[in-house]
Amino acid sequence: MSQILTAVYNQVATIALNHPETRNSLSCQMLEEMLQAIEQFSHDENVRVLVIRAPRGTKVWSSGFNIHELPVSGRDPLSYNDPLECLLRAVARFHSPVIAMIEGSVWGGACDLSFVCDIAIGCPTSSFAITPAKLGVPYNISGIMHFFNIVGPRIAREMFYTAEPISAERALQVGILNHLVSVEELEAFTYAMAGRIADNSPLANRVMKEQLRLLADAYPLRPETFEYVQGLRRMAYDSKDYEEGKRAFLERRKPVFSGK
Amino acid sequence: MSQILTAVYNQVATIALNHPETRNSLSCQMLEEMLQAIEQFSHDENVRVLVIRAPRGTKVWSSGFNIHELPVSGRDPLSYNDPLECLLRAVARFHSPVIAMIEGSVWGGACDLSFVCDIAIGCPTSSFAITPAKLGVPYNISGIMHFFNIVGPRIAREMFYTAEPISAERALQVGILNHLVSVEELEAFTYAMAGRIADNSPLANRVMKEQLRLLADAYPLRPETFEYVQGLRRMAYDSKDYEEGKRAFLERRKPVFSGK
Amino acid sequence: MSQILTAVYNQVATIALNHPETRNSLSCQMLEEMLQAIEQFSHDENVRVLVIRAPRGTKVWSSGFNIHELPVSGRDPLSYNDPLECLLRAVARFHSPVIAMIEGSVWGGACDLSFVCDIAIGCPTSSFAITPAKLGVPYNISGIMHFFNIVGPRIAREMFYTAEPISAERALQVGILNHLVSVEELEAFTYAMAGRIADNSPLANRVMKEQLRLLADAYPLRPETFEYVQGLRRMAYDSKDYEEGKRAFLERRKPVFSGK
Amino acid sequence: MSQILTAVYNQVATIALNHPETRNSLSCQMLEEMLQAIEQFSHDENVRVLVIRAPRGTKVWSSGFNIHELPVSGRDPLSYNDPLECLLRAVARFHSPVIAMIEGSVWGGACDLSFVCDIAIGCPTSSFAITPAKLGVPYNISGIMHFFNIVGPRIAREMFYTAEPISAERALQVGILNHLVSVEELEAFTYAMAGRIADNSPLANRVMKEQLRLLADAYPLRPETFEYVQGLRRMAYDSKDYEEGKRAFLERRKPVFSGK
Amino acid sequence: MSQILTAVYNQVATIALNHPETRNSLSCQMLEEMLQAIEQFSHDENVRVLVIRAPRGTKVWSSGFNIHELPVSGRDPLSYNDPLECLLRAVARFHSPVIAMIEGSVWGGACDLSFVCDIAIGCPTSSFAITPAKLGVPYNISGIMHFFNIVGPRIAREMFYTAEPISAERALQVGILNHLVSVEELEAFTYAMAGRIADNSPLANRVMKEQLRLLADAYPLRPETFEYVQGLRRMAYDSKDYEEGKRAFLERRKPVFSGK
Amino acid sequence: MSQILTAVYNQVATIALNHPETRNSLSCQMLEEMLQAIEQFSHDENVRVLVIRAPRGTKVWSSGFNIHELPVSGRDPLSYNDPLECLLRAVARFHSPVIAMIEGSVWGGACDLSFVCDIAIGCPTSSFAITPAKLGVPYNISGIMHFFNIVGPRIAREMFYTAEPISAERALQVGILNHLVSVEELEAFTYAMAGRIADNSPLANRVMKEQLRLLADAYPLRPETFEYVQGLRRMAYDSKDYEEGKRAFLERRKPVFSGK
Ligand code: NI
Ligand code: NI
Ligand code: NI
Repeated sequence: MSQILTAVYNQVATIALNHPETRNSLSCQMLEEMLQAIEQFSHDENVRVLVIRAPRGTKVWSSGFNIHELPVSGRDPLSYNDPLECLLRAVARFHSPVIAMIEGSVWGGACDLSFVCDIAIGCPTSSFAITPAKLGVPYNISGIMHFFNIVGPRIAREMFYTAEPISAERALQVGILNHLVSVEELEAFTYAMAGRIADNSPLANRVMKEQLRLLADAYPLRPETFEYVQGLRRMAYDSKDYEEGKRAFLERRKPVFSGK
Repeated sequence: MSQILTAVYNQVATIALNHPETRNSLSCQMLEEMLQAIEQFSHDENVRVLVIRAPRGTKVWSSGFNIHELPVSGRDPLSYNDPLECLLRAVARFHSPVIAMIEGSVWGGACDLSFVCDIAIGCPTSSFAITPAKLGVPYNISGIMHFFNIVGPRIAREMFYTAEPISAERALQVGILNHLVSVEELEAFTYAMAGRIADNSPLANRVMKEQLRLLADAYPLRPETFEYVQGLRRMAYDSKDYEEGKRAFLERRKPVFSGK
Repeated sequence: MSQILTAVYNQVATIALNHPETRNSLSCQMLEEMLQAIEQFSHDENVRVLVIRAPRGTKVWSSGFNIHELPVSGRDPLSYNDPLECLLRAVARFHSPVIAMIEGSVWGGACDLSFVCDIAIGCPTSSFAITPAKLGVPYNISGIMHFFNIVGPRIAREMFYTAEPISAERALQVGILNHLVSVEELEAFTYAMAGRIADNSPLANRVMKEQLRLLADAYPLRPETFEYVQGLRRMAYDSKDYEEGKRAFLERRKPVFSGK
Repeated sequence: MSQILTAVYNQVATIALNHPETRNSLSCQMLEEMLQAIEQFSHDENVRVLVIRAPRGTKVWSSGFNIHELPVSGRDPLSYNDPLECLLRAVARFHSPVIAMIEGSVWGGACDLSFVCDIAIGCPTSSFAITPAKLGVPYNISGIMHFFNIVGPRIAREMFYTAEPISAERALQVGILNHLVSVEELEAFTYAMAGRIADNSPLANRVMKEQLRLLADAYPLRPETFEYVQGLRRMAYDSKDYEEGKRAFLERRKPVFSGK
Repeated sequence: MSQILTAVYNQVATIALNHPETRNSLSCQMLEEMLQAIEQFSHDENVRVLVIRAPRGTKVWSSGFNIHELPVSGRDPLSYNDPLECLLRAVARFHSPVIAMIEGSVWGGACDLSFVCDIAIGCPTSSFAITPAKLGVPYNISGIMHFFNIVGPRIAREMFYTAEPISAERALQVGILNHLVSVEELEAFTYAMAGRIADNSPLANRVMKEQLRLLADAYPLRPETFEYVQGLRRMAYDSKDYEEGKRAFLERRKPVFSGK
Repeated sequence: MSQILTAVYNQVATIALNHPETRNSLSCQMLEEMLQAIEQFSHDENVRVLVIRAPRGTKVWSSGFNIHELPVSGRDPLSYNDPLECLLRAVARFHSPVIAMIEGSVWGGACDLSFVCDIAIGCPTSSFAITPAKLGVPYNISGIMHFFNIVGPRIAREMFYTAEPISAERALQVGILNHLVSVEELEAFTYAMAGRIADNSPLANRVMKEQLRLLADAYPLRPETFEYVQGLRRMAYDSKDYEEGKRAFLERRKPVFSGK
């Protein structure tokens, strides 16, 4: 059965994560369904805004990447053609603005997903945690860019090094949230903004979104620099700590990292 | 008759927009006068700071680009040698710091002008709206950079996609305003800061301004990427929506965009 | 006698500036001692976080570069192999996260030092001033980048042009401080965060720190642009104003700059 | 009737320009047919090399862009979505190596087409001329890059400024041709090389082609630089000389350029 | 027993590959010995030039990477910390000019080694082949850059796609060789040039070598572009063809590639 | 008395170096005169090509920078505002193509001058030597780029490290010369090409020249990289070897470099 719900109404499309059993975990199935929905909306002339949300009243917007599906040691866990990476690019390249409507906590890969949306609207239960340091996963540079662009280097470092959640209030202050409204108002506020965007010129918004995306991607590095980074990342995903991180998570205990 | 007033006092130059009939619209004449004033100040050894302002008590700092002067369909409305583009570069390259002293609302191209100033001081009546999505105008990448640099990607996207004004309070929080003071204090506060800057080393400030400008411009893109963006922009300014946006504005009605 | 104190406890290393006679001025001796300590910690497998701090109760975290040691006119005062520049790079390249624990005021070169730390925790007595414009010193582009990255262009320009201190409250708002806590809590809060980081994967944090550093450095400029900037900087450090700035500082009077 | 012939044999695909009436002019129809052929080959798993050629014995490989189809003054004649530009990108992005087999003279846009092929094999009748300076057309930066990459700045400048043909002998020396063989051997030599390539790993060749393409495109420019170039190009295609160039060509007389 | 010979004479250091049993294959042992020799020379103030050569009369300068040591499927065969990659960087970063004195044929990884040397002197028996397409190995972008820089895109593509050797005569024409002399003169010619370089300013040569290296590395790409390339490369080294290439080589038969 | 001759004839301007006493040394006076001539031609609508040449029959086209005018130790000898640097930029930015007509030998800074011209035509007496390694001068990165662009890395390294002259024949092969003709034909050949260029569209040539210049400058480096290079260069111009190189040249003896 489908893990998401989709709708189009008044030129505003919606994808609602809808799999409470896994707290909306970004399993392969969930990711593929989202990719298909976006692909479909991208051919729908009627769609001028996309809202990504979870069901009303949820405690967890999404629990993030499905740790069971992390690859074995010796393989890059964040490779270009993995479905999560494909989804992040599909959101960034979607022809129209994408609004993340955030109720509940957002974890790991879902935190990255919420950061690639153009705009984010939250409520007091929203929180954001990016957790690779807890798992021993060497995050990839395009993912780190998503955070660096939105919260700047100081908050990005704190988020990555501590892997602790950021509260809704602080998320507003540091620029993760465009607006923080009450749970009751969240839906109305979000769709009102979506409606105002849908009334504006879709051609102008499309080209401005592309330009904004290109500016956000303009961190050119020398090939040797990337190969160096990839070498460091490989040391991490070849390490014992990488296995320890995953095992500890699945055993619901604190990992013990040796740096090896 | 001149649409601006200029003055130099205590090493601080001032340009005051002064054309209430058009709510300080950035007409060709206004823009040419500002360019001439800046050219003149740039040869005046006595000038160490420039303040750009509107008259005391104004409701509109500037209503922005003169829509009557938008080019016909099929022509890029934001070309390198257009006077507004020349003015934005002249402000960014002026040898000394430029302070935008903002009383009243700031619209469209004037919003871009206020963003290329080095520092902005506002008061409770200040507000900022960047409106190309309402007009169907595909904004240009250097203009989008001015916003991206100051407010980051999330607020920039909201401003561009919604075309709605940002209030003074929020402008302070998101980094548009360096300081928000009462209307009564605005002038004294601004000129006090200008005076403190004028007491510092003009040679050090000049080279630091250039370095800051160069960092803010360091978004290198591949030529093919630009040609792709220019192709997207051309589709927009060749479209029917481009004409509809302009016509609706002049007829003071809401535009109806078809995406074509 | 040594001007710093060092310690390692629970995988958290500490460097405490400890030279009240000069208000922790960044003299050559101080800088060399810090470089040695960091070099030593970088070979210590036990170290997973580094805290840089001043003694409890200090009014001045550091008074910054030792003005007596500024080079004579005609020589670049901020050259690649100067000890302050070496220290800034050593902090940015240190294999583990570095937290600046800030009590008291931070001036000039010490302000730059506090900005290259990954994370900064402050208290109500913290303040930050970057003062080359008062001295007539043309700051260098890598130093300007440190500020540009953290506070964005508008606050960076205000800090550089005015050379005035930023208060703790404002430092929190503009992103200089990750957290602002009371003086009493400062130590406990800082070391608690350090402990949480030390529990996470050191390999993941190491590669994520490198990636964050590389993104923060990705401001590529053309060689001719640098040579132009270096030419402007040379005009400034060859000028009379450069000598006036230094002399006025040592004579504890306000400089009189002529722009020559 | 079709203006091209296509074939696939032994994993080597061929496109033969075949419209002697217009001396294989790159008319819209010719370009669309080539685009369709390449699209089709890109889905054919059997294709590992593509040869682009003209019929045996031709004096003109291709006469280049169809001047009748140049846009009117005031419109960019080399826009991203024009069919010639689409074809150049399709060749560069084709999943397998593309060999230009050149018999006869190559003019204007066809010269650019021959330059985006991976490898070129010629014979004594081959010659290459890039002619926008004769027509008053401001060439675009991606096109100029194709020449700059292959012949370096000195020969590129001579080719663009003089618009004179380069002989086969000189084409070999300056790197336009990989090999220069007799007319009789041309076909056998070319298909022998194609066969050797087809025997090698198609996956390795595909990724190496992409990497070579990306290196050849790595000329990052600042957005303002591109807008400046676009402004210069617009001055040229808005000029009287642009019209004079086209008219003179169609009237088969030498143009008289005024620089206006 | 050592696989290389080293010497320093008249400020000119020499590394001679000396393992005829494997035709100077770049085995791990050979690579480690070369790395150690270079490390040692880098601390020898007396060394101002380095010559890398094979014994007089050899037919094979080096047979290249030891195919037995290629990693299993699923692992990147050209990773940053592999000894061949370390050697290539050590040569490029060596403080003094490095001359490749080439007698005999040069294959695969040894071809890359000869390309990172600053200068190459050859004789009629020299030839150069870069063979990953024959093995099904997706070459890495820094390696491809070494060829792209020296022979330009057209010859680089031919070399990579065909994997065929380039003769000494052609190597001179396309810029692989600085000079082509007779076998008898090779040694005298090479050491005479080395001597002339050693007489010049070592400080000037050191900084000019660094600048030339940095220019040759200035191909900045966006992080997403690298991740895309790395994704393509992973598809290739995860493929059946990767295994077929290695197996066929070891079985001394022609590989049969399926593209899968 | 003037050290150059200038003329404009048939839309072709000429600057002839004309100071045989110093073998056309690029003294400050010579450089200033050339800068003035170019400034004047840049406002002359009649000028569509510029030829830079020496008098008929000269043995030395130019002996290069005037070594007596090299700055003292401790000062960068190749600073942005030095007249030679200004001249190199003026040639590269001149609105029309510039042809170097080379009779005789070209040394040091004059070699750089000949490389920034768009096109070079030589005769059998032409030769090219770039000599900073003989003088102990750390060349600057924009100068090194001029050579790197035209002759590629291998020949550039040989030229810089050996400081030996390149003969006319080899200059043609490696791409320094566009054409090599007899001394008798040199003038006719050069002015015939100049005439053909002058007949083409000046607007198209102007924008294509700018685009070619921008591509040739597209070597973006990180600020820290440049500061590192500048640090290395400073070590060299602060060294004893820098003084030894200059002294030995003026004493017409071979320098003895110690590396200090
Ligand atoms: Ni002027
Ligand atoms: Ni298709
Ligand atoms: Ni060492």
